[in-house]
Amino acid sequence: MLNSVTDGFRAELKSKLPEAAFRELTESYLQEPRGRYHGGDGFLIAPDCTEDVATVVRACAEAGVGIIPYGGGTGLVGGQVAESGPVPVILSLERMNEIRDVFPTESVMTAEAGVILSSVQKAAEAVDRLFPLSLASEGSARIGGNLATNAGGVNVLRYGNARDLCLGVEAVLPDGSILNGLSRLKKNNTGYDLRHLLIGAEGTLGIITAASLKLFPKPAGEGAALMVVPDPQAALDLLALAGDLLGHQVSAFELINRMGLDFLAEVGPEVRAPFTDVPEWMVLIDVGCVAGLDPSEALERLFEAAAERELVSDGVIAQSGAQRDAFWTIRESIPEANRRIGSVSSHDISVPIGRIPEFIARGGQALARLDTFRINCFGHVGDGNLHYNVFPVAGKSRVDHDHQRGEVKRIVHDLVAELDGSISAEHGIGRLKVDDLNLYGDPTKLAAMRAIKAALDPKGIMNPGAVVSG
Amino acid sequence: MLNSVTDGFRAELKSKLPEAAFRELTESYLQEPRGRYHGGDGFLIAPDCTEDVATVVRACAEAGVGIIPYGGGTGLVGGQVAESGPVPVILSLERMNEIRDVFPTESVMTAEAGVILSSVQKAAEAVDRLFPLSLASEGSARIGGNLATNAGGVNVLRYGNARDLCLGVEAVLPDGSILNGLSRLKKNNTGYDLRHLLIGAEGTLGIITAASLKLFPKPAGEGAALMVVPDPQAALDLLALAGDLLGHQVSAFELINRMGLDFLAEVGPEVRAPFTDVPEWMVLIDVGCVAGLDPSEALERLFEAAAERELVSDGVIAQSGAQRDAFWTIRESIPEANRRIGSVSSHDISVPIGRIPEFIARGGQALARLDTFRINCFGHVGDGNLHYNVFPVAGKSRVDHDHQRGEVKRIVHDLVAELDGSISAEHGIGRLKVDDLNLYGDPTKLAAMRAIKAALDPKGIMNPGAVVSG
Repeated sequence: MLNSVTDGFRAELKSKLPEAAFRELTESYLQEPRGRYHGGDGFLIAPDCTEDVATVVRACAEAGVGIIPYGGGTGLVGGQVAESGPVPVILSLERMNEIRDVFPTESVMTAEAGVILSSVQKAAEAVDRLFPLSLASEGSARIGGNLATNAGGVNVLRYGNARDLCLGVEAVLPDGSILNGLSRLKKNNTGYDLRHLLIGAEGTLGIITAASLKLFPKPAGEGAALMVVPDPQAALDLLALAGDLLGHQVSAFELINRMGLDFLAEVGPEVRAPFTDVPEWMVLIDVGCVAGLDPSEALERLFEAAAERELVSDGVIAQSGAQRDAFWTIRESIPEANRRIGSVSSHDISVPIGRIPEFIARGGQALARLDTFRINCFGHVGDGNLHYNVFPVAGKSRVDHDHQRGEVKRIVHDLVAELDGSISAEHGIGRLKVDDLNLYGDPTKLAAMRAIKAALDPKGIMNPGAVVSG
Repeated sequence: MLNSVTDGFRAELKSKLPEAAFRELTESYLQEPRGRYHGGDGFLIAPDCTEDVATVVRACAEAGVGIIPYGGGTGLVGGQVAESGPVPVILSLERMNEIRDVFPTESVMTAEAGVILSSVQKAAEAVDRLFPLSLASEGSARIGGNLATNAGGVNVLRYGNARDLCLGVEAVLPDGSILNGLSRLKKNNTGYDLRHLLIGAEGTLGIITAASLKLFPKPAGEGAALMVVPDPQAALDLLALAGDLLGHQVSAFELINRMGLDFLAEVGPEVRAPFTDVPEWMVLIDVGCVAGLDPSEALERLFEAAAERELVSDGVIAQSGAQRDAFWTIRESIPEANRRIGSVSSHDISVPIGRIPEFIARGGQALARLDTFRINCFGHVGDGNLHYNVFPVAGKSRVDHDHQRGEVKRIVHDLVAELDGSISAEHGIGRLKVDDLNLYGDPTKLAAMRAIKAALDPKGIMNPGAVVSG
């Protein structure tokens, strides 16, 4: 069992760390974006160097005090908020916000965990490189949190998840020792890959304090198109065709259902699709082309080939950067419209890409047997990752379905499991899905996770209650 | 301490597994390509299904018998051979050689661990896809071993190491439980990434029995060029320029030193570079272009831009597939020439790409202070990975330098460590580099590795003596 922070513990750490490391625990550290969790009391510490992080962790390990690592606070599964239990240290990385080094010829950057994701992007841009991790909360999410949760976003199709963009990490392990793993090497086969163990562990095995990140050449030209497809299967066929014709120049491939557009019309924000009739399904295709290829022409060729195969019935190719941005604004406004409508239950799931049509068809049928809902299914279809969100019909509110929330989730997750999918494609487990993971996870994997957790964090101080239970 | 296989143990397993699983322990299972290690006695078992692998592992766990996992036997660091100690089970995956499924529209394949790498490549080719892992031993290496050792090869620059090509693994853990992790998902954030822990663990944490592998669109056109560069720094500048002009269309970027060409002339195989004067340094650039770009024209543009910057003094662009193959034959014949000369010490190292020129300059100087050697430094410079091999001068043999071998290795590895490099870029640790890893590895990493090993394999039965010690 863990112990609460005591006055003596506070005094001890205040004697060891500079005063600037101690900040008032304001409300913002206790909230999370979806308002499901509200944090209890905590001792907020914001060290500005790895050594001080280690000092805090060592003190916690000795005293048996829990640590809640805190990045940008943008996580969607409650990994950054402890509601109850002994008073923990809330360890914010916000003051570790230096970009330590940029190596343009190596296409590598070393950044501290507290650097805001958009600042990482800008630092890459400044040396004419691309850091491709991109997601809605990039203006406040911090790179350490992005790595701890293996963030996804819109460019995974081409560049991979956060873990694929990281060459190495520096971290403080649960005993307070410092892992010096800031490798800039593309090849390094010297024992177990602790980087990949810490990435995605959501702070339960240690605290990432800095990372070496992969940068990429910027595409020579960029473009986007909205294409209307008859159904999800056609979207998949179009994705395959895009792969054949454009190779890895396809950066993003996002599916948008009519429901998202209807929600925008109903509650705003005020954006609309550039088609006279609101399409049942459309895809947003974004490309980054190599030198010598014109993005608009490439998208036109794709559209023509798709039209020949009857995979698309209409389409608009962006004629300017502004129009491309406008297409993305449609996609990125949908989550806000969803919030305004208020979901009964939302699901960040993935299934093998080929099974997406079956998932969408059967999911709708199964939920219809329970009650009448509106389903807004959209997302990163190129990665098999759907945001499958269930809403009340117009005139009803989420409260009317409170009693069905568990059942809705069970129906969706059961189907995901049956189709070999994932109950958390990109948001992680946090505190929200611990029980789900226990229910749907492979028993051998769960046992191995518990064994690893016990081996590296025998007192269970690192983000207690998140990811691993029992 | 482990126990030797006993007659009773043999009888027990023979009663549980079909007769075909038991094969004669021929000499080939006890050798390894470099002849440094020779295996002792062992009980060879070759199960043909995951359940039977689990049966063997459970029996070994109960009896405290060691297991040497055996793939294609092509490893270069002795990971597949136990010379001494209690008689172990040698568990060969050779009969688990089915490609279970191919999903062309998802660009995913599921293959058992014993499938030969070239067969994986061919199965991808059969559905018009690319499995890009490519290395000299691909005709006999098995995919399970490639994953267990996180194999590299010539296409890492573009497609990553073996771990980057794997979506999920099925494995038998040291207690005999089966990890069902054959995910085809591109996004799956549900707890610790055991896949990446098993990949690169060289069979010390479990036995990979099958894997889901990423396939890629085949490039629309391929090409290659040999370009003569004045020095390694120019090679790096050329690499950066190639990235700017061609983006990720650069598949391979291999540095070749005059010494490799001299060795070919001296001992064969009979291949030569297509230049009148043997160049001091040249690079082999391989490209796979998207539709609409001609590889030869792209390489010509690169050559012109490089010539303008004085990065290249000569060059030949392949005018046919046969000529492209001929260029690759030069590169791939160098290891054979090296074997014929006989190295004093060979090193599979990597350094941050920007430090390659410093490494080459200082390595040569430091070794020259010890004695007169010939150094053949070549390899995957695009990944920072050099094969830095030290040879006797003409007229002397490696035996003449036997007494200096340790010192040569120390000089090279000390410099690698000083430059934040890796003492094993792609071959792994095996048994050859256990002491080196203990010497140069981060202490926190080593402690965490031991804790993980003890947690998952408390009796130490999995590939005892490899990777982790003490």
